[in-house]
Formats: sequence, structure tokens, C-alpha cells
Amino acid sequence: MNPYIFEFIGTAMLILLGNGVVANVVLKNTKGSNAGWTGISLAWGIAVFCGVFISADVSGAHLNPAVTIGFALAGKFSWTLVPGYFISQVLGAMMGNLLVWLTYKKQYDNTTDPSAILATFSTSPAVRNPLWNFVTEVIGTFTLVFGVFFIAGGNFANEPISLGSLDALPVALLVMGIGFSLGGPTGYAINPARDLGPRIMHMLLPLKNKGKSDWEYAWIPILGPLLGGSIAAFVFMGIGF
Amino acid sequence: MNPYIFEFIGTAMLILLGNGVVANVVLKNTKGSNAGWTGISLAWGIAVFCGVFISADVSGAHLNPAVTIGFALAGKFSWTLVPGYFISQVLGAMMGNLLVWLTYKKQYDNTTDPSAILATFSTSPAVRNPLWNFVTEVIGTFTLVFGVFFIAGGNFANEPISLGSLDALPVALLVMGIGFSLGGPTGYAINPARDLGPRIMHMLLPLKNKGKSDWEYAWIPILGPLLGGSIAAFVFMGIGF
Amino acid sequence: MNPYIFEFIGTAMLILLGNGVVANVVLKNTKGSNAGWTGISLAWGIAVFCGVFISADVSGAHLNPAVTIGFALAGKFSWTLVPGYFISQVLGAMMGNLLVWLTYKKQYDNTTDPSAILATFSTSPAVRNPLWNFVTEVIGTFTLVFGVFFIAGGNFANEPISLGSLDALPVALLVMGIGFSLGGPTGYAINPARDLGPRIMHMLLPLKNKGKSDWEYAWIPILGPLLGGSIAAFVFMGIGF
Amino acid sequence: MNPYIFEFIGTAMLILLGNGVVANVVLKNTKGSNAGWTGISLAWGIAVFCGVFISADVSGAHLNPAVTIGFALAGKFSWTLVPGYFISQVLGAMMGNLLVWLTYKKQYDNTTDPSAILATFSTSPAVRNPLWNFVTEVIGTFTLVFGVFFIAGGNFANEPISLGSLDALPVALLVMGIGFSLGGPTGYAINPARDLGPRIMHMLLPLKNKGKSDWEYAWIPILGPLLGGSIAAFVFMGIGF
Repeated sequence: MNPYIFEFIGTAMLILLGNGVVANVVLKNTKGSNAGWTGISLAWGIAVFCGVFISADVSGAHLNPAVTIGFALAGKFSWTLVPGYFISQVLGAMMGNLLVWLTYKKQYDNTTDPSAILATFSTSPAVRNPLWNFVTEVIGTFTLVFGVFFIAGGNFANEPISLGSLDALPVALLVMGIGFSLGGPTGYAINPARDLGPRIMHMLLPLKNKGKSDWEYAWIPILGPLLGGSIAAFVFMGIGF
Repeated sequence: MNPYIFEFIGTAMLILLGNGVVANVVLKNTKGSNAGWTGISLAWGIAVFCGVFISADVSGAHLNPAVTIGFALAGKFSWTLVPGYFISQVLGAMMGNLLVWLTYKKQYDNTTDPSAILATFSTSPAVRNPLWNFVTEVIGTFTLVFGVFFIAGGNFANEPISLGSLDALPVALLVMGIGFSLGGPTGYAINPARDLGPRIMHMLLPLKNKGKSDWEYAWIPILGPLLGGSIAAFVFMGIGF
Repeated sequence: MNPYIFEFIGTAMLILLGNGVVANVVLKNTKGSNAGWTGISLAWGIAVFCGVFISADVSGAHLNPAVTIGFALAGKFSWTLVPGYFISQVLGAMMGNLLVWLTYKKQYDNTTDPSAILATFSTSPAVRNPLWNFVTEVIGTFTLVFGVFFIAGGNFANEPISLGSLDALPVALLVMGIGFSLGGPTGYAINPARDLGPRIMHMLLPLKNKGKSDWEYAWIPILGPLLGGSIAAFVFMGIGF
Repeated sequence: MNPYIFEFIGTAMLILLGNGVVANVVLKNTKGSNAGWTGISLAWGIAVFCGVFISADVSGAHLNPAVTIGFALAGKFSWTLVPGYFISQVLGAMMGNLLVWLTYKKQYDNTTDPSAILATFSTSPAVRNPLWNFVTEVIGTFTLVFGVFFIAGGNFANEPISLGSLDALPVALLVMGIGFSLGGPTGYAINPARDLGPRIMHMLLPLKNKGKSDWEYAWIPILGPLLGGSIAAFVFMGIGF
């Protein structure tokens, strides 16, 4: 089966369940507005579990350009597949957010705060400061991709590695932990597709009370994660793998 | 052993623990009123774990007509068993809610808000809108049944599949995620038996301060999940399984 | 090794971590007072995990007279061991609560509400009603012991069964679910030793601001669980095991 | 590969995710301030999972001098490795807290309460009382190390034991439980490196609004855990292992 299709499906599942909980917490007239950051961190972790579980056996469950580039830099994933993975991940993220919008259609209609609406698509910082927001995304994504290397278990140089469905639980816990612990300043994009795909959807969808899509911030959750994932690859190789 | 009995038992366990947490959160004079949506989502997931664990080895742990119809449409479950599974699931859900009522008898007596009482039986929307409530239930159930196909692992055409007890954890996490993320608009029935059985019990039981059983809404958490599960079957087959 | 010692140790661990979280939530001057019912339900489940994990390989991890009597009634545990198990469980529960008291010594000193202090030892109902409190404990314990039968996996008549360390996670999830869902009316003793041992300690310890030990309620969390566990045994055998 | 490096990496991961959640909850201008003690306990447990998972196969994942000394006293870990493990653990904890500071740089700048800032580094008691704070740390760490002995499974005298990556989940649950249940009085250091390394970093870093590093309290979260881990070793050996 086609790995691109499974990257698309897995990333769509990730964003549907991931941005779904944000919609439940921040939009008007939902049942889950009291779930708070605990609910958001737990559910994003579960979203990772579901996305990885579904896609792992066919595509290796990257679901994240920062993972793809980290694996490729470490010589453990073919560069020829990289562009197709990137595109599938961004398109999957767009599809996932489209389903969030359909699921919460009336809630979107009733919500008047444009920043709450944007929050159900892409990330924004608690304190806007490009340098330090970038640093936060680099550290968060380094933590993710460094951990994923160990979970995927790539013990031999230049041998391909990927996540299997049994790796879904440890990766989910890792992302849960990053959410609780490193998500406070920027909302932990830690994944360029997770931020870019939904931001494109925010721009495209006919949302009532839509504000700006905040494109001036968009480079941070793209370049920060790509750099963090790359550093993780070099550190992982540097310590002897 | 008789699979119908185990569908009955598993669904009763599902509803006892599932609607039990709703009773704990919304009724008067309980100890768990502060558990909120986080408690509800976690406990419904655990309810799925327990129901699936108990019934999986004998009945395959559908516990949900939307799963049954999805498996049957995919050629992976015999149509001749479908009516008996449906009936067992609805009766099991009724039994589970009877036990919730007995467990919280004094709390039911002390609660004066009829909508809180109904909420411990069947679902109701946060914003009432038949079309979009239906869409929400379709998407939520699609997500559930699509994920269940992967967890049950039906890789070969027309071969029967079912859940085993080791699948209880991934299915539980999937339902936990759906609760946190897609449950905000309608309270995630995602299961016709989960909504219909308890609504019948609400009609039958001699509840003090009982309001209407809201039968005009009842078709949505029945037909929405059946359609969502059916779409999941076709998409699952369409991507090559 | 001696199974009685391991029942003692396992039950002590259960109560230390179980009543520890109650102390953290209800006593004055702790850091965890905002953890609420979600924290209590999660931590009691984890307490079960730790207690079962430690004792399973030697004693089979009953940690609960209701489990012991259920297994014995089903012909799956020797009656000659029952009295020793009961005594070990009650003594273990007393030891666990002694450690809770030492851990929270200054918090106990600073807490002036006698009912908060008693709550860190034994259970009390949200609405006092002997009949319905009893029913609640019967249903809660039935759910526990019925589930434990399936987890322990006793498929053959009269063959001994016990929990192993790999069963710690499903049993923990089961108790987590019972806490969230059935714990609202009585605080879910579902275990005679969990309530009796700590109540004895409450009577014995030199607690400042100590109120009554509420012995008139004590029979409910003893007899209710014993009856619930017994019913579970008969139902389990009745459905063909 | 070098076990010291992996103790360093594992402990850095532990503190990054562990003190990260404290920063998210207590500093100004974060997104996770409502996560409360539930979030802190869950995330510290997940931090343990990630730290153990990464380091287990090379260093045995002590990440804690109290574990190291417990294993050594039980004759299950070479005394010659102990000093190097201690140093690696303290340095790793310092590195982890450095990354927390960089992740939350703007939040640290905006926080004016020195005790909130210190709380993201080292522990402090809810009620200051050296004797009872010490007792709390002894009991908490006893619980941890006693449980770790069972998880590591050292059934034969004088045979080396260590944690493997499959032990990451039970150890994480154990620490989660200790956080919820025994963490209320002192914030559960239960690990000398977890407290000392960050306290050194607090002293060294150019923090705005920095208060005192509270060195007069520092001996309690060092000596308490070392004593608790030692007692665990003797009890474990005493019951027949």
C-alpha cells in the first residue's frame, strides 16, 4: 500500500483529535470547556497514539516533517521519499482540520473571538517574542525527535528505521509530556505540518468572525521544528548510534 | 459460550461505568462533581476498556451497532448474527443504566433538574441543530469504527475480524480521544445502543423529577452512528484492505 | 515466600498511595488540594497497580477480602487460606494508613475539620442512607470482582486462579473506572480491609481534632463488598466458567 | 556505550519534562496554569517514562542517587560505578533545568514571585518543619525504591539488576502515584539529584527576580531520599530476595 496515503490518513487523524480538543476547550457552547490544559495535553497525546497506530505499518508513522527530516539526516530514511511525505502530511493536517470545523460547525458560528477560532487551527505564543518562541519550538521538537529515535530503535548506522504500531504508546506519552511540560509558551507546534496545514485551512474556510491567519508568526512553528529535529538527528548520531 | 450473552454483559459494563461517571459529575450530592469533562472522557474510555476486555474473547466485543454494521458491510462479520447483536447491545445498555440508577438512587432523588437526570441516560446536543448534530455524530463514529478496523487488524478480504482482549487498551484510548476532542457538540453517542437503551430506561424508570425523554432527538444518535460506521467500512475497504 | 506477608505488603502499598491522595486533596496546607475527584480516582487506580504488581507473584494479589471470598466461593482459592488472607489484608491496610499519617503529620495537625481527617482513613457516604449506601457498595464491588475474574482468567472449574503482575494494569484501570463512575455516593470502599483497617487506625492514633470513628457506618463497607464479591462469583460461574 | 552519558541524558530528560510542567503551572503568562496538581503528577510520571525509556538499555536508568545507593547496598550494583552515576545524575539534572529555563525564558522574565521561580528548580515544603519534611521524603523515597526493586526483578542474591525499557511504564506509574499521594507536604523530591542539580542551577543562572536558593532546606531532599532508598534495600533483602 501507498505510504503517502497513510501519512495523509495518520496526520488527518492526528489533527482531527488534536485540534478537536482545542475546539472543545476554547470555542463557545461546547461541553468540554472545563477540560483545560490537562485535557488538551492528554488528548493531543491520544491523538498521536491513534495517528501512529493507524499509519505505522505502512508509512512508518512520521506524521511530522521534523521526524521525516531527522530520520533522513541520520541516514535512516530515503531522501527521495521526503518531498512526498511533506506534502502528504500538510494535506492530511488540512483534511483533519476540515473535519474539526464540520464537527464544531455551530460552535464556530457562535464564537466571536477571532483568536479562539485561530487557536483551533494553528499555534500562537503566550508571549510574542520571535527569538524565544523559536527557541521553545526548537527545544520541544528536539525532545520529540530525540525520543522518537530511541523508540524507533535505530541501533545500526544507515539502516532504515520507522515506528511500528507497538510504538504508538511510548510516542503518545512523549508528546503528552511535551504538551504538559514544554507547551506553555507557544502551544507546542513541534510539527511544521500541524501548524502550516491548519493555517492554510484557516485562510481558506468561510469562518464567521474570522480574524487574520497570523502569517507573520508562521515561520516559527515551521523552521523551529525542522531545526530541532535536525539537531536531534546529529546528537543521536553523535552519542554513538 | 453464547456471544449474545457476552455482548449483553460487555455493553452493560460499558454503560454502567460510562453513564456512572456522568451521574457522578452532574447529579446533586455526589463526591465527583468536580471531575468535569476530563473525568467524563477518561472514565468513558476506561468503561470501553472494561467492556471490551470482558466480552472480547467470546463475542468480539462490538458493544455498538455501528461497529457491528461496519464489520458486516466490510464482509468481516456474518449478517445472520447482526440482529441478535443489536438486540443484545440495546438490552445490555438498558441493564447498565438500571445499575447506574440503583447506584445513585439517593442522588437521583435529590436532583431537581430534569436535563441533568436525562444526561445520565442519553445524549443531548450543546447547540440543538439536527443537521450539524447529525454531522458531528457521523464524524465521531466514522473515527471510532475506522480506528477499530485497524485495531482489529482485518488485513484480508472477507475474513472475519473481531477485537481480542489485548485490543481493549487501544480501543479505550481511541474512545477517550473522541470524547475529549469530538464530544463537545453532542456528548458523543457514537453508538446507537448507548443512546437508545438508556433512553428507553429513562422512559420506563420511576424517576422523581423526570422530564421528557426527548424522543425527537433520538434518531440522530442512532442514524448518525450507523452512517458513520458504514462510511468507515467503505473507506477502509477503499484504501486496499 | 510467605503469601501472607505479601498480602500485607501489597495492601499496605494500596492504602499508602490510596489514602495518601485523599490526604493530599482534603487536608489543610498540602500542595495537591486542587487535584479533586479526578486526582483521587486516578491515584487510587495507580495505588492498585503498585499493590498488585508487588504482591502478585507470591500471593496472587487479592488485597481485598471481597476478592478472596469471591475466589473461594468459585472454588478457585483454598478456604484454609482465607482467614490468614483477611488478617493480612486488614493489618496491611492499618500499616498503610500509619504511613499516610506520618507522611502528612503536620497537615493532620493543621486540619481542624474532623470529617476531613476521617476521610483520609475510612469511607463515608455523600447522602447517608444505610439501604442505598449498601446497594452502592454491593454494585461497586460486584463490578470489581466480576472484572477481576475475567482478568485472572479462570476458565476451568475448580482450578486455582490468581492475579499476576501483568494483570496489574487492567485491574488498575478497572478500579480507576469504578472510582470515577461508581464512587460518587459512598467513596467506593469496595474492599472491607480498605475501610476496616484504616477505621481501626483512626480510633487508635493520637490525632489532634479527631472526631468519632463513625462505627455505626462501618458494617456497610464490610458487608456490602463481601456480598458484592459473592454475587460476582455466582454470576461468573453461572455464565459458564 | 558509556553508561554515565546515558545517566546524564536520562536525568536531563527527566528534569526537562518534570520541572517543565512546574514552570507551565506556576510561572506567569503560560498556557498551562490551570493544569494544577493533576497535571504536575501526570507529567512527572511521564517524565520518568521518557527518561527511563531512553537510558534503560545502556545505564539501567537509575536517574536517581537513591536508586543507585539502594541497588548498591543490596549487592546488585557495583560500588565502583556509584560516584560516576551520582555525578552524571546531578549534571544531567542541571542540564535539564537549563533547558527548562531556555524554554520558558520570557515567562521567567515576567514572573515576579521568587518562590514561584524557585519552585521550577528545587522543592520546598508546604509546612516547613525539618523533622517531618524529612520523614515525608524518607517514606516517599522508600516507596519508590522498594517498588523499583520489584519492577527490576532482582530475585537472586548479589546478581546485578537494572531497569529495562519495558520497565519504563510501571516505574512511571509508581512515580505518578507518589506524586498524587505522597507529594503534598514537600513536593516529592524523592531524588537527591532532582533537587540538588536544579538548586545549583538556580544559584548560577542570571534570573530576574531571583530570590534565595534556600540552601538551609537542601539537606532534606538529599539525605531523606538516600535514607529512604537504603531502608528499601534492607527491607527488600529482609523479605527474602
